[in-house]
Amino acid sequence: MDQNKQSRPLPLQEVKINDEFWHREQELVRKEVISYQWNALNDKVEGASPSYCMHNFRAAGKLVMQERQKGKEYVPPKYTFRGFEALPEDPKHPEPDKFYGFVFQDSDFSKWIEAVAYSLVQHPDTELEREADEAIDLVCAAQLENGYLDTYYIINGMDRAFTHVKDHHELYCFGHLTEGAVAYYEATGKDKLLKAAIRFADYVYEQFGPEEGKLHGYPGHEIAEMALVRLYEVTGEEKYLQLSRYFVTERGKQPYFFDIEAKKRAKLDGEAYRQDKNPMRYAYYQAHEPVKMQKEAVGHAVRATYLYSGMADVARLTKDEELYQACVRLWDNITGEKLYITGGIGGTHMGESFSFGYDLPNDTAYSETCAAIGLVFFARRMLEISPDRKYADVMELALYNTVLSGMAMDGKSFFYVNPLEVVPEACKKDERKFHVKPVRQKWFGCACCPPNIARTVTSLGSYLYTKNQDTLFVHMYAGSEVETECEGGCLKISMESQMPWEGRAKLTIKSEKPVETTLAFRLPGWCKDPDIRYSEEKKSKTENGYLYLTGVFQPEEVITFDFPMKVRMLAANDRVREDIGKAAFMRGPVTYCAEEADNGKNLHLLKVAAEQIAKNPDVIKIDDLMIADQQVKTLKVPGFTVKRQEEELYVEYRMPKIQETMITLVPYYTWNNRGEGEMSVWMRT
Amino acid sequence: MDQNKQSRPLPLQEVKINDEFWHREQELVRKEVISYQWNALNDKVEGASPSYCMHNFRAAGKLVMQERQKGKEYVPPKYTFRGFEALPEDPKHPEPDKFYGFVFQDSDFSKWIEAVAYSLVQHPDTELEREADEAIDLVCAAQLENGYLDTYYIINGMDRAFTHVKDHHELYCFGHLTEGAVAYYEATGKDKLLKAAIRFADYVYEQFGPEEGKLHGYPGHEIAEMALVRLYEVTGEEKYLQLSRYFVTERGKQPYFFDIEAKKRAKLDGEAYRQDKNPMRYAYYQAHEPVKMQKEAVGHAVRATYLYSGMADVARLTKDEELYQACVRLWDNITGEKLYITGGIGGTHMGESFSFGYDLPNDTAYSETCAAIGLVFFARRMLEISPDRKYADVMELALYNTVLSGMAMDGKSFFYVNPLEVVPEACKKDERKFHVKPVRQKWFGCACCPPNIARTVTSLGSYLYTKNQDTLFVHMYAGSEVETECEGGCLKISMESQMPWEGRAKLTIKSEKPVETTLAFRLPGWCKDPDIRYSEEKKSKTENGYLYLTGVFQPEEVITFDFPMKVRMLAANDRVREDIGKAAFMRGPVTYCAEEADNGKNLHLLKVAAEQIAKNPDVIKIDDLMIADQQVKTLKVPGFTVKRQEEELYVEYRMPKIQETMITLVPYYTWNNRGEGEMSVWMRT
Repeated sequence: MDQNKQSRPLPLQEVKINDEFWHREQELVRKEVISYQWNALNDKVEGASPSYCMHNFRAAGKLVMQERQKGKEYVPPKYTFRGFEALPEDPKHPEPDKFYGFVFQDSDFSKWIEAVAYSLVQHPDTELEREADEAIDLVCAAQLENGYLDTYYIINGMDRAFTHVKDHHELYCFGHLTEGAVAYYEATGKDKLLKAAIRFADYVYEQFGPEEGKLHGYPGHEIAEMALVRLYEVTGEEKYLQLSRYFVTERGKQPYFFDIEAKKRAKLDGEAYRQDKNPMRYAYYQAHEPVKMQKEAVGHAVRATYLYSGMADVARLTKDEELYQACVRLWDNITGEKLYITGGIGGTHMGESFSFGYDLPNDTAYSETCAAIGLVFFARRMLEISPDRKYADVMELALYNTVLSGMAMDGKSFFYVNPLEVVPEACKKDERKFHVKPVRQKWFGCACCPPNIARTVTSLGSYLYTKNQDTLFVHMYAGSEVETECEGGCLKISMESQMPWEGRAKLTIKSEKPVETTLAFRLPGWCKDPDIRYSEEKKSKTENGYLYLTGVFQPEEVITFDFPMKVRMLAANDRVREDIGKAAFMRGPVTYCAEEADNGKNLHLLKVAAEQIAKNPDVIKIDDLMIADQQVKTLKVPGFTVKRQEEELYVEYRMPKIQETMITLVPYYTWNNRGEGEMSVWMRT
Repeated sequence: MDQNKQSRPLPLQEVKINDEFWHREQELVRKEVISYQWNALNDKVEGASPSYCMHNFRAAGKLVMQERQKGKEYVPPKYTFRGFEALPEDPKHPEPDKFYGFVFQDSDFSKWIEAVAYSLVQHPDTELEREADEAIDLVCAAQLENGYLDTYYIINGMDRAFTHVKDHHELYCFGHLTEGAVAYYEATGKDKLLKAAIRFADYVYEQFGPEEGKLHGYPGHEIAEMALVRLYEVTGEEKYLQLSRYFVTERGKQPYFFDIEAKKRAKLDGEAYRQDKNPMRYAYYQAHEPVKMQKEAVGHAVRATYLYSGMADVARLTKDEELYQACVRLWDNITGEKLYITGGIGGTHMGESFSFGYDLPNDTAYSETCAAIGLVFFARRMLEISPDRKYADVMELALYNTVLSGMAMDGKSFFYVNPLEVVPEACKKDERKFHVKPVRQKWFGCACCPPNIARTVTSLGSYLYTKNQDTLFVHMYAGSEVETECEGGCLKISMESQMPWEGRAKLTIKSEKPVETTLAFRLPGWCKDPDIRYSEEKKSKTENGYLYLTGVFQPEEVITFDFPMKVRMLAANDRVREDIGKAAFMRGPVTYCAEEADNGKNLHLLKVAAEQIAKNPDVIKIDDLMIADQQVKTLKVPGFTVKRQEEELYVEYRMPKIQETMITLVPYYTWNNRGEGEMSVWMRT
């Protein structure tokens, strides 16, 4: 870890996105997702599973406030277990002082407020801000005097708070609340929610840590690690970093905290405790061994990437080289063996988890939207520590493909699972594929993905650029205006970009005075012959896929970028059994797929003319197509329809009938925006 | 249904198997499986899950006999639900008067006694017969005065007998007991167990039927349908046929009996009853609609084939054309859309069930051994109604491949699941494949497959031949001596056969006098140019794949059969996505597969030279190999190793390195007899 290489994202206020592609996505989130989500949190969406999120805050707030008005402190009842998900007997009339939904339902609000915060920076909106402030009032009203703020236990019984951190998501809800609070404070300057988060953080700090009498535990679902670092960075309060570091380094130590708390719970319940001896039983939680020893990305993919992101944060701030090396190893393991060509991760729906190395099934893939988002978080943090295009390439891949695939192009429906091959009949009739939905859903009972997309898309600015004392890094090229202070003065730039459809971009210095500084530009891994033009007085070097230009940048000076976007036909490693004999296509950062809408049914009968294409890639034609309201580039790939058309189940093998055809491929993120149908990323060769 | 075409299997006493191939299998069953199984039933196998089967009979017998000795009748206690599987607190010391194991554990004895019976016919063994008689004494001692004989309810509470026929397997246990009893009576002439089965059958007849006051129900797990027909045929008692017919035709009628009994149970338990409205919820049990309306084979594949077998029996005996047509439809559906090339059925482990049409995954296949056996039962019964080689071809396919694959070549371990593609790492690390075992297991808690193999292999004689008034049908060619009465006198024949390794067989008439009759010989579907030589004075015709020879057969007259066994390279129907671009190989009735033992790891990198082979099949060489102690024929197929050997996960597509190689294929049933390793039936082309 080289301190000099480190950099930090710019505050969102310093980056205005005006990119044609991404601005559209941000506007979708602002106009569609955020308001839809608010209705969902308030159980006002016809036909969708109720969230009960705001109901729970109202219920808890009522209980707390009632007592406070009497000058008393609310004392939660004795806990009686009500399960992981509680539903009202009469769904239309939930009782006003009961908790409903999943144990982690509070986090729905936190993700919403985070997206709102980022959106307000990009697009001020007094009505939305008023709504947000009112929601914050409701949330803060539920907080206990001691700072605790998780409605499940506030309503159901504080005697059991922090007795089941493995599965009861209190620290997850705490983490999300903190992220949301920091974001809202940074966006609006309003600190009511931040103060609540600080009080909650202080309470958590009192409960967890190495000191005797504290719980020697860590979250079951990670995120608090990242969140505490953000809280540390906004408050400067060292103890939040300490606590994050404690969560990270305590994880996976023996005896396992999850066993210890289970034993305690058994005692409280007067039940016998039996320890499971399987050493991998906590791999789902990445708690099977201390994180510094971990070499393979395992378990629940969202949890994993949230943890690794927190590890990277802590490594950076505490200069922990060993922890950083663990991050590098885990990154390399994911991207070397466990990454879909769509930027998705999580090969199996069993535990929404990473499968074993090179096991990347297309039709039963999990590839959760949130996991791709987690990978983006992890990538950005690795970039912060050491700029290397390998991180930015994957970050870009995940953003342009799986993250966007998670949301319909009208912002009104969502995928949780992002398969690489779909036959709708199989999703409906084959229980092995029931997790794969052939069409996007309006909302989910466990609604992690839609708000996660919202907060990621609205905060895009923080992924495009990072800076340190002497360098501004450009990790992705997206139309934007940047204004930031650097050593050499106030640096203003205007970036224009035609990504992802053309590899051209143009940066214009907008500072009023000349600025002496270094600008570092990522040379995308998908481009072999980048052509960057700049005034020749600059000192330049290329390192880890970044071009560094140092010198005095004059007002209105222009740097142009030409990253020719050749269509790339790709093969998977021999060890990926599911992709053997197949090819996939990319252009720039965009992964393509074949859809029934263009190619008819039975995509498995198509073959691409791989040999011909390998000899002359120009046989692939690029075309334009409107999907939803967006003009996208499609590929016309020469290929064949290969048919036998026999009636019998098994027939003597004869060379099949081959008919030449042009196969149309569309950007993966646009799939399933033209009705239900087959889809495939990998094509037979 | 043409009455004149019908035929029946020969009594086992009339067929002595001396076939080199099958005699070995029968001896394995006799020497290894039957004695091992007896130890298993008595919980004497180190390291295996206890069966508790004989324990339960002893426990029930003790309870019944204790009272009887006091001149009283045993009154079972009031039922308190003990679950689908009951295990002793201390596994080493089960309490002597409690029921343990699955609810259907009694059937383990019945399958064992059935295999013993067939084996005794083939190979008399006084010691084994004594053991069997003692076991029968134990079983009969447990029977209640009223004839009821299912230890689960005898021990746990008769007040709940026949209150949960959907899942509690009483009628399944009754069916197996009856099958075993008939077999033992036919083998030994001893009728103690038969009488017990008759008393039980009479009790069941009192409980079930169309009359008011009786239960209008049918088995949750079918088999009683077939068994009652056997009981009818051995006793001539019409009511058993009536009951079988009732079970068959009542099935699937609305309102569903399974709902009615669930409602009653809810009332008994004082619980609320909520009906599931999904019309397919009883498809698992083939009880979603009346059987005569069924067109698609669905649900649990073993149950399905047992039901269809019973339907065929009832159709034949009651001359029910509509029922027969349902059988034909279901047969055609299975063999047209849902049959593996190994003769296995059941595409999904979810419910051990048929998947949807053409969904035949290789690596997650269920293809249960018992389901292939059920298919053999169904095939034989369809042959009995109307001889057509389409039935015999599939019967032979299932027997030589999946049924035998179920048992190791030393008779000491078993497969429940018979996949068509295995990568051991995936079976261990990928939860989607946990049902696929990379090595055979010694025994199973739910031990249906090993005893089912035993009873099938030992009764092989009943699948080789059937006869009617004027014709003896030869469905499969296996070395055997037959002596049976026909219209023309006593017909004795000696069949010699080199199957399955060579397509040659020879039949010699061994009758002392000339016999005028018809002999009908199946012309196997896998042979295009059969050459059958016989004396020319016969009248001959070919119908539905059988050659009928009518005339006077002289002593020592010889008929020779030459069915040239060309290696066949086969393709699956275009609609089978999992086999697209692949080929499989068969020779005669034997399906082949590639194993790691011969071809090294990474079978997915191999391709067969399909074009070359299609032009000239003779490029495939046939070789000999010893596997376990058996000489088998292997195939040497020209092909290629196709490698990229890149380190990265995704690389630019270049034409891969191709290296010529010879791929060794071994008979599918011999797979995994040389240690754990990869296996694949379908090979890339």
